[in-house]
Amino acid sequence: MSSRTVIRGGLVITASDEIHADVLIEDARIAALAAPGSQSWSADRTIDATGRYVIPGGVDAHTHMELPFGGTHASDTFETGTRAAAWGGTTTIVDFAVQSVGHTLREGLDAWHAKAEGNCAVDYAFHMIVSDVNEETLKEMDLLIEEGVTSFKQFMAYPGVFYSDDGQILRAMQRAAGNGGLIMMHAENGIAIDVLVEQALARGETDPRHHGEVRKALLEAEATHRAIRLAQVAGAPLYVVHVSAAEAVAELARARDEGLNVFGETCPQYLFLSTDNLAEPGFEGAKYVCSTPLRPREHQARLWRGLRTNDLQVVSTDHCPFCFTGQKELGRGDFSKIPNGLPGVENRMDLLHQAVVDGHISRRRWIEIACAAPARMFGLYPKKGTITPGADADIVIYDPHAEQVMSAATHHMNVDYSAYEGKRVTGRVETVLSRGEPVIDQREYTGRAGHGVFTPRSTCQYLN
Amino acid sequence: MSSRTVIRGGLVITASDEIHADVLIEDARIAALAAPGSQSWSADRTIDATGRYVIPGGVDAHTHMELPFGGTHASDTFETGTRAAAWGGTTTIVDFAVQSVGHTLREGLDAWHAKAEGNCAVDYAFHMIVSDVNEETLKEMDLLIEEGVTSFKQFMAYPGVFYSDDGQILRAMQRAAGNGGLIMMHAENGIAIDVLVEQALARGETDPRHHGEVRKALLEAEATHRAIRLAQVAGAPLYVVHVSAAEAVAELARARDEGLNVFGETCPQYLFLSTDNLAEPGFEGAKYVCSTPLRPREHQARLWRGLRTNDLQVVSTDHCPFCFTGQKELGRGDFSKIPNGLPGVENRMDLLHQAVVDGHISRRRWIEIACAAPARMFGLYPKKGTITPGADADIVIYDPHAEQVMSAATHHMNVDYSAYEGKRVTGRVETVLSRGEPVIDQREYTGRAGHGVFTPRSTCQYLN
Amino acid sequence: MSSRTVIRGGLVITASDEIHADVLIEDARIAALAAPGSQSWSADRTIDATGRYVIPGGVDAHTHMELPFGGTHASDTFETGTRAAAWGGTTTIVDFAVQSVGHTLREGLDAWHAKAEGNCAVDYAFHMIVSDVNEETLKEMDLLIEEGVTSFKQFMAYPGVFYSDDGQILRAMQRAAGNGGLIMMHAENGIAIDVLVEQALARGETDPRHHGEVRKALLEAEATHRAIRLAQVAGAPLYVVHVSAAEAVAELARARDEGLNVFGETCPQYLFLSTDNLAEPGFEGAKYVCSTPLRPREHQARLWRGLRTNDLQVVSTDHCPFCFTGQKELGRGDFSKIPNGLPGVENRMDLLHQAVVDGHISRRRWIEIACAAPARMFGLYPKKGTITPGADADIVIYDPHAEQVMSAATHHMNVDYSAYEGKRVTGRVETVLSRGEPVIDQREYTGRAGHGVFTPRSTCQYLN
Amino acid sequence: MSSRTVIRGGLVITASDEIHADVLIEDARIAALAAPGSQSWSADRTIDATGRYVIPGGVDAHTHMELPFGGTHASDTFETGTRAAAWGGTTTIVDFAVQSVGHTLREGLDAWHAKAEGNCAVDYAFHMIVSDVNEETLKEMDLLIEEGVTSFKQFMAYPGVFYSDDGQILRAMQRAAGNGGLIMMHAENGIAIDVLVEQALARGETDPRHHGEVRKALLEAEATHRAIRLAQVAGAPLYVVHVSAAEAVAELARARDEGLNVFGETCPQYLFLSTDNLAEPGFEGAKYVCSTPLRPREHQARLWRGLRTNDLQVVSTDHCPFCFTGQKELGRGDFSKIPNGLPGVENRMDLLHQAVVDGHISRRRWIEIACAAPARMFGLYPKKGTITPGADADIVIYDPHAEQVMSAATHHMNVDYSAYEGKRVTGRVETVLSRGEPVIDQREYTGRAGHGVFTPRSTCQYLN
Repeated sequence: MSSRTVIRGGLVITASDEIHADVLIEDARIAALAAPGSQSWSADRTIDATGRYVIPGGVDAHTHMELPFGGTHASDTFETGTRAAAWGGTTTIVDFAVQSVGHTLREGLDAWHAKAEGNCAVDYAFHMIVSDVNEETLKEMDLLIEEGVTSFKQFMAYPGVFYSDDGQILRAMQRAAGNGGLIMMHAENGIAIDVLVEQALARGETDPRHHGEVRKALLEAEATHRAIRLAQVAGAPLYVVHVSAAEAVAELARARDEGLNVFGETCPQYLFLSTDNLAEPGFEGAKYVCSTPLRPREHQARLWRGLRTNDLQVVSTDHCPFCFTGQKELGRGDFSKIPNGLPGVENRMDLLHQAVVDGHISRRRWIEIACAAPARMFGLYPKKGTITPGADADIVIYDPHAEQVMSAATHHMNVDYSAYEGKRVTGRVETVLSRGEPVIDQREYTGRAGHGVFTPRSTCQYLN
Repeated sequence: MSSRTVIRGGLVITASDEIHADVLIEDARIAALAAPGSQSWSADRTIDATGRYVIPGGVDAHTHMELPFGGTHASDTFETGTRAAAWGGTTTIVDFAVQSVGHTLREGLDAWHAKAEGNCAVDYAFHMIVSDVNEETLKEMDLLIEEGVTSFKQFMAYPGVFYSDDGQILRAMQRAAGNGGLIMMHAENGIAIDVLVEQALARGETDPRHHGEVRKALLEAEATHRAIRLAQVAGAPLYVVHVSAAEAVAELARARDEGLNVFGETCPQYLFLSTDNLAEPGFEGAKYVCSTPLRPREHQARLWRGLRTNDLQVVSTDHCPFCFTGQKELGRGDFSKIPNGLPGVENRMDLLHQAVVDGHISRRRWIEIACAAPARMFGLYPKKGTITPGADADIVIYDPHAEQVMSAATHHMNVDYSAYEGKRVTGRVETVLSRGEPVIDQREYTGRAGHGVFTPRSTCQYLN
Repeated sequence: MSSRTVIRGGLVITASDEIHADVLIEDARIAALAAPGSQSWSADRTIDATGRYVIPGGVDAHTHMELPFGGTHASDTFETGTRAAAWGGTTTIVDFAVQSVGHTLREGLDAWHAKAEGNCAVDYAFHMIVSDVNEETLKEMDLLIEEGVTSFKQFMAYPGVFYSDDGQILRAMQRAAGNGGLIMMHAENGIAIDVLVEQALARGETDPRHHGEVRKALLEAEATHRAIRLAQVAGAPLYVVHVSAAEAVAELARARDEGLNVFGETCPQYLFLSTDNLAEPGFEGAKYVCSTPLRPREHQARLWRGLRTNDLQVVSTDHCPFCFTGQKELGRGDFSKIPNGLPGVENRMDLLHQAVVDGHISRRRWIEIACAAPARMFGLYPKKGTITPGADADIVIYDPHAEQVMSAATHHMNVDYSAYEGKRVTGRVETVLSRGEPVIDQREYTGRAGHGVFTPRSTCQYLN
Repeated sequence: MSSRTVIRGGLVITASDEIHADVLIEDARIAALAAPGSQSWSADRTIDATGRYVIPGGVDAHTHMELPFGGTHASDTFETGTRAAAWGGTTTIVDFAVQSVGHTLREGLDAWHAKAEGNCAVDYAFHMIVSDVNEETLKEMDLLIEEGVTSFKQFMAYPGVFYSDDGQILRAMQRAAGNGGLIMMHAENGIAIDVLVEQALARGETDPRHHGEVRKALLEAEATHRAIRLAQVAGAPLYVVHVSAAEAVAELARARDEGLNVFGETCPQYLFLSTDNLAEPGFEGAKYVCSTPLRPREHQARLWRGLRTNDLQVVSTDHCPFCFTGQKELGRGDFSKIPNGLPGVENRMDLLHQAVVDGHISRRRWIEIACAAPARMFGLYPKKGTITPGADADIVIYDPHAEQVMSAATHHMNVDYSAYEGKRVTGRVETVLSRGEPVIDQREYTGRAGHGVFTPRSTCQYLN
């Protein structure tokens, strides 16, 4: 017999609507929405959402749990990372399985399935990092799409590790044009950047702030433009990850004006942090080392504008935490050895709500960039990312008036610092349902490892 | 006691979603949406929508019923025009009340209320044409907004009739920046165009096609740009009506890239007709005389692209019919005397569905540009323009597979020709509910004059 | 019998070349250039230019001697103004004859001939301000071109005085497209600006700095764009005077990328002064009131860039001096009553040489924007603006190392203040020949009123 | 004792001026210019140029005499090629010395000196192709600049042969930023193109026209943009060779609007030929195979516009002839094996004069793009590229009214076909002086191998 939950009295906010409505959940799915009080639904559980927002669970389309990088691993496991996600109102993550050079996509994907299975507090899906394009890999792409892994990341940076040359990129894009896959791009000219890194180190410029100086905005914009033109030649769509430079947004805007299926993601760290953080005294700046790097504060306005004009569609976290002690410290005396990445999966929904409070975006746009657009982009909609009959009952009861202070002392990510330490924000997750089950209940964790399941995805639903 | 209607088995399409869902209507409003078959709702009436689309009633934000123009009147009354709208799946029109120079806004609005009241088959609202900006007019704008007339149209063309100079435009925009009104602009440089008209006539160029030649695309683009900059100076949003030129779309795209609250509407005639029609032999071209004029066929691709990239947000009809016999004929021998306007209120939803069939836009975008966006733009959302609990039950059951041939012989508009005579399209309205009441039932008219009511509007809900 | 002058040992700088050469002058013209010392020319006078630049006399294409404005007159007569020009190394001015509304071009031109004839120290020519476009005026344009008055200025500002509406502008441009005339445009949306002026005064904002605030950069850019599109419709070239706003330069750059014959002039005051000057305490800001107004300092970089990229072609002065005492003071308590204009005819060549010293432009570009380009633009080349056999012997011996301090105490313009009071610059005019005759000889005035003659011009030589 | 030549009665045309003047030559240099008849010069030789143009000898900044390519050699030696150049009115060529991978710049340069020395009919200089960037190469760049080889070409195409990756390009640009060298770029994304080549051949698309199809315009534009951004990062100027795609011109225009020192060259084949030629029946298309490839005819308008707006500065030939018989034929059945290159050194001046006749450019612009700008760009001005006292007496007497038909039957290049076979043009070289000596005299060859000498160059004189 089915279990029924009713959420009453809240303001249901989706990417398209803000309505006062009651929500009926039957088992794992949303069964109905109704005008407040119009239906006398019986229920096993009733949640009073008066004065609260009823929003779709967040979809974080860019995480790296347990990622091996620079001789260490990202410090959040799928268990700790997805639990933190739940605390932050995110009920789906899309993590990156990694193909290593010389290995198949299958091997990489299997390894990531093994890491995640049985460990996740919320649902998860995978993108596939393609490090080695060849005839076999291209064929495997077709198979993975059938299994629900429908997006493939390539790197224009990190030569010798993840790097693909323009020919490999073109080949993968051509395949994607045929099979419906979506190419995701780390767009930095890594070949040129590595020359600048080597020169900086030779000049004795070894501090974290030099990480930001050598990875130039122009070289992000250049690679963004190049990826766009290669995609245009291939006739394929393109999704550019972690856009941070104003000049890169301009390239995306230009391409979108031309009507191309080109998309961009940015991350909270680029919206709220800057090179000022990278330049913090001592080795503190290492906490903020990620790639693309943080940019001078002036770039933020262009990112917010891009989010408003829909030249950027998605805000993900690129969650990839490394502890300051023992991990970030690997790069003392050589910024190029600092593991690249920041924690953030728990903070995204709150930071973006703060952007609503600050007037950068509207409430509906908040839900769109954090829930609906990533779900559409990666073939999870309307199962994820919205509140509508038939959708998974991934729902957050959000208190828009509660205040909180972000801190490593109180967060749930497995990392010894917060990139937003001491930041005061308005708004807080109160209760979180994942497929109808409470995983956070009135700010108490009620979930469990293994509740979250692998979620196959269809192809991109965001094309023109 | 309330009346209940259930629509079962259809594909509910809104601007944001396509879901299989049942819809419960109580009295005039949508009470609930539910997963198909999940709720055992009792109902007075059940509509089987299997194999059909269930879509929001269309919102046509630009009509001119009974408009006095060039010594004659648009041939559709509010009665005939709104009945034709219903036949075409449009359940809300926003018509233009006209202030004459030397008179108050109030006088104009009252006159239009008198024409419409008790005569309409579907709901209606008003924009206000401001022909005479002065201190009194500006104050009246505030009052009208309180009454639900929240948008104000100005003309950069038609000197001596509707024309406002840049100072008057700036003043109205400044007022709108303060009171939340939205300025709608007829953007053509009428001062320059009138020089070209006079010169053409002096050269003996009197045929309808010269109408298209003198009203140059560059002069539409120029006025569009000028209106944008004036709005930017005033800090006000701007909505440009009936955009037809590729160059004008480019100006809108540029402004939107800059993050300005600038919006554009185009019309089916610019998407489906061209200067080829204006050049039809004999005096046939007069049927297609409207302003802005039809453009060479090449402009259409830019308009479709603008609709896809959201540089254009709305498709309205600018419905303003004049009979060929007796009305259009006033301009024989002098194109400048041809009454400006085309019939179209009945054809819009079908033509845009054909655009879905042709691959120009997606199904959701069809609903967005024809229903949701105009409702949001003009403060009618979510009462109008979508299907969600609490919304007015303005719903169309649409058969996506039926074929029809457009013709004056079969249309319901009070005009003796069709601009799309003989055009075969796929898709047809089957049943239309207006606030829960069937006005078209299985392609039979079941409505009545007076069912439709004046619908006050809130201010623009489409701002960044 | 002819008189011969030889200039030996100098560096001859033209827009295209920098060569060490001797220059032979016979009577009023340059007879030959030769490799230094290669020709044993006999001469009546030999000028030793060792260590000096030998440059063409400056061509100031925008002056307003004795202009009636706001109930007073520009304080320099043709006599005092052209003498000051000579002191500053300028040997040709192009002044603006004014048509008053209701009068013919002929009347205006005759009046200006009468003011200038017999009074000028250096050669002069005229543009014609067209205030009243009608059939007669258009025909007069043809006649004036035959007389060597080949350029016609219109105003998009100053309604009721010089203002032309877009129809009048279009008509004049069409005529120019046919007869080879060049339309010069004062590009500010004066209709909108006058609204802002009235509002500012109503708010009690009466100080000079408000002059800069109400005449917004966006309204200069808008008018610039509008003029460009009208010229495009007419198929005519366009020259925009006194460009001061970055946004206006952007419009010119866009048009030039499109291959249009669109040209822009800026002035030293926009390159060296800013709204900081307008905001000087007391009523001092009135000294800097001109239209277009001075802009915030940030605009200067865009102007310099425009000069380097040739999106701006000419630097003229818009010399239009009013004494602070008794003239500028007319606007105490009402900035809109301050006569618009600055002195500058004497300072231009030196300020632009300073720009060479400062690294903004090259030496050849200095000569191009100050001598050759204005001569070409207005049909005076190669008679004026360069040093080549056959050209008028208008030559300046310039000491690039001398230092001077600009000051009303030492300048020769008939005005009681200097806009550059106290500014130290490197470079100074030493000797000036006008048609072979020394008018400044080793910094002594040796000219005379009446030496300068009216110089008919051919049509624009700068077209693509 | 010196030899004196006087050229009387002609119209002297330079990039900046068109004047009737007599020219006095003493030995190898121009001694003086004088107003016609003003100087009674004695002379050993007098040339009557009445009715003729007197223009600077052409500077062809892009030739490949005897270039080894694809297992064969360009068919013109320095002897035959420079003789043909003289016939065509070109008195200076800048050829490309080639560094092979694994060898030094010095070795390459010495080899090219050996090929040229004693063999040339007109003066010559060298660029250096850098195929192998490393610490030694970078140091050699400094030395070559001291020897007058001041420009360095890199390739973004031809992996495994000339190709440099972005890091190597950045390093070379950084060096150039320091030592004043100018990087010249073959801008095509060769990595991506080679994928398309392989795919086309695999599909059996082996005809010459497929050469044009795989080397996509977008991939030229992409590489152009990338080179621009790398140069911007390095702070170095950039010269893009053989620009053929409209989209690439747009990238240059954008960069130049930004004020960057970015320059572009196109070639007559892109202005006068198109993919129509590549598609000529049989294997005829092979005659037109060069890289960048010929483009569809529509691109030509953008190139002409770029030449007018100065977004393109130079027209060179990229002269690299291969005989149809025995050389082009190497690619029968595999377009990728067709040697890349066209003959043209003899045709350039005439084709560009035809462009004057056709109205694409002015006479002065003809001289600018063919003589003055390449001389300035590559540090040869004013020794080469103009007619002014002190300059080398490289002068062409050009008959603007003579007609000729281009043909392999009559041309002097050592190649068995003409790319312009049968083309009728107006204008013809009559007499050519190289450093004062006639090499063509009334259409008779009077030169000799060995007259032409290596001409060291200073650094780029074209920078902002």
